[in-house]
Amino acid sequence: MKQVTAELLTIGDEILYGQIVDTNSQWMGVELSNMGIRVLRKTSVGDIESEILQALKEAEERADIILITGGLGPTNDDLTKPCLAKYFNCDLVMNEEALTEVTEFFKSRGRELTELNKMQAALPSACEKITNHGGTAPGMWFGKGNKVFMSMPGVPHEMKKMMIEQVMPRLKKQYDLPVIHHKVIRTIGIGESFLADKIKDWEDALPEHIKLAYLPSLGEVKLRLTCFGSSLKALEAEAEKQTATLKQLVDQYIYGYGEEPIEVVIGNMLRERKMTLSIAESCTGGKVSHMITSVPGSSEYFQGSIIPYSYDIKMAQLGVKEETLNQYGAVSEQTIIEMATLVREKFNTSIGVATSGIAGPGGATPEKPVGTVWIALADGGRVITKKLQLAKERHLNIQLSSMAVLNLIRLSIKESPVKA
Amino acid sequence: MKQVTAELLTIGDEILYGQIVDTNSQWMGVELSNMGIRVLRKTSVGDIESEILQALKEAEERADIILITGGLGPTNDDLTKPCLAKYFNCDLVMNEEALTEVTEFFKSRGRELTELNKMQAALPSACEKITNHGGTAPGMWFGKGNKVFMSMPGVPHEMKKMMIEQVMPRLKKQYDLPVIHHKVIRTIGIGESFLADKIKDWEDALPEHIKLAYLPSLGEVKLRLTCFGSSLKALEAEAEKQTATLKQLVDQYIYGYGEEPIEVVIGNMLRERKMTLSIAESCTGGKVSHMITSVPGSSEYFQGSIIPYSYDIKMAQLGVKEETLNQYGAVSEQTIIEMATLVREKFNTSIGVATSGIAGPGGATPEKPVGTVWIALADGGRVITKKLQLAKERHLNIQLSSMAVLNLIRLSIKESPVKA
Repeated sequence: MKQVTAELLTIGDEILYGQIVDTNSQWMGVELSNMGIRVLRKTSVGDIESEILQALKEAEERADIILITGGLGPTNDDLTKPCLAKYFNCDLVMNEEALTEVTEFFKSRGRELTELNKMQAALPSACEKITNHGGTAPGMWFGKGNKVFMSMPGVPHEMKKMMIEQVMPRLKKQYDLPVIHHKVIRTIGIGESFLADKIKDWEDALPEHIKLAYLPSLGEVKLRLTCFGSSLKALEAEAEKQTATLKQLVDQYIYGYGEEPIEVVIGNMLRERKMTLSIAESCTGGKVSHMITSVPGSSEYFQGSIIPYSYDIKMAQLGVKEETLNQYGAVSEQTIIEMATLVREKFNTSIGVATSGIAGPGGATPEKPVGTVWIALADGGRVITKKLQLAKERHLNIQLSSMAVLNLIRLSIKESPVKA
Repeated sequence: MKQVTAELLTIGDEILYGQIVDTNSQWMGVELSNMGIRVLRKTSVGDIESEILQALKEAEERADIILITGGLGPTNDDLTKPCLAKYFNCDLVMNEEALTEVTEFFKSRGRELTELNKMQAALPSACEKITNHGGTAPGMWFGKGNKVFMSMPGVPHEMKKMMIEQVMPRLKKQYDLPVIHHKVIRTIGIGESFLADKIKDWEDALPEHIKLAYLPSLGEVKLRLTCFGSSLKALEAEAEKQTATLKQLVDQYIYGYGEEPIEVVIGNMLRERKMTLSIAESCTGGKVSHMITSVPGSSEYFQGSIIPYSYDIKMAQLGVKEETLNQYGAVSEQTIIEMATLVREKFNTSIGVATSGIAGPGGATPEKPVGTVWIALADGGRVITKKLQLAKERHLNIQLSSMAVLNLIRLSIKESPVKA
């Protein structure tokens, strides 16, 4: 089987000048690799016709699939469409279907359609229009022999939707791709090097055709097994077997598999147990609630939160005792116990959780340096507390504390019975 | 003056496969642009000799400066050094000074120096060694006519230190660089195409040496003026003049300049006016509070929030009337007025804001489709309300509503007097 190859071409001065970080090509790299397509090269060029044309030519010489993002906005500095028209030796013509879609898009949002917006529906005649279900700039699919050029918007959520729903299925159909099976195991509450230590023997014993990758992000480490072979069924069975052995080594840290992040996993756990949740978050300032409510359907188990950022609000709205705050301070085990207990009672939920800490850069004392955080969970029977010593940077402390609270919820309800 | 050009070449399979996001080239893009060096292209290739050599050749044909990162680790899959030796037709030889540095580095960290580590001091004989003050892999500077090839480690903090302390000063010395001035104008509350319509005549009248770029992101559009010339002072004055004209056209949408996002600008506005803020957020679920509290020092003006996600909590904790909810629903002007008014009173702040909407995918009715959002602001004297019709996707509705509330705060306090 011939290896199918791809090149990623991102267009826009803003990428070259570093005004934006190109996360699109990273996402595409993952998705294409998962499909068994080898990414040969990533290229970014600016909004200059000759350079775009040159990059298209070079990419065509090397790769089977050329995926292009960016440069599709309605303004004059967006050159992708005229360049593609020139490259494929055709004209830009108004695509009536695309015009209807753009018109509908603006109508549905109660916005006026300007002449500039209308031009988004003008496409090179050589392309097949791919509907943009998340925005106004259509995608363009060009076939040339067995090669494919696909131009997509640079807005990440528009591009991803188009890739997942339309481009990837078509590529799978057109090309003879190898059999690859990926399994992602998601861990939380353990750092990368500690995890690597614990699973070293298992990792060393993996067969040649199964590769392991560590994918750490803030507060969690994902492990990805990539299995190469000829039968998907056999690969799936093998991945399951390897995962079962891994589970024996680090069971307590594994919170899920595949694409579901911790906030989704916790949501499912709460729903299955018919439990409800409330949150009193101080140092995390809304981040935990935001993560919980980013999940569709979270209103089934999430009642609400209070963010008592000041001492006054901690007392007046949540009911933390003045003596506790005066004697121990807001960042203390005594205060966090009251916060978790009180929010659970006031919001009448199965579980109440709380955070209080020094996110930084200000607010530190010799005994409580930046990164000192208390978290707690009250479930009516008990209050579990945990002290964390985290990072120097504010955004890290907010993110890591939030992940730690979500993990605390997971661990505390794991053994509770699931209700029918 | 001839434009000095650069290409960025990042080497490593992990970039192509999307295992890491390449933030190095973004950082270098900013630094080089600020120096007046035009980045022509960014290329990423994998750990394959022929592809690295080909990319070096192509870059040399186009650019004056070729900056290379990655592929300098001690393991066999790191090919940058042997490829550079081959490209410059020389051998890898042990560099005694580099060996001393590597030895010292390991000694200072109490770690043993292995044979593999020692090989980091073997460099192509054609290069000049650049000391790595943050790690073990030395940088390599190759001069070829007036062209420069500079290879640096892929670890971001090592690369940045090397660039700032050694590479950038040398480039400034070697090349005759133009003077460039960037000015970023940040707008909110208007879409890219509407903004473009409003400022079209101004944009068309910009002189040749001033370029305009639109940088849209969720809920805001940044405009970047890039001015080329020979005197920084003159360019700064020109950018100010152009900005003043622009301000007359779209003053109400401009919320700031440069690097500060809306949550920082609002924080400064509140602080300057000695005003305090509380939030009742339903559909945004904590996102607004998270944005506000991501800013260091936000506890000076932010008292806290309540996230009354359920009807029960809206009534019991915030005090929204049962009749209002029953008669008009949670997503209504009547309810949002009560929410903003009540949170302001309960939290005793200058301003109270509120959000309530159908974030989706569930919860819609024929009269209130997904994306219907009410926001409000109460300041004691008045309550301003606004109905939004946003997107189909939950995360977009959360993000766009949050930006809209922050803009509402900005607009409402803009005219209030600043206190000494």
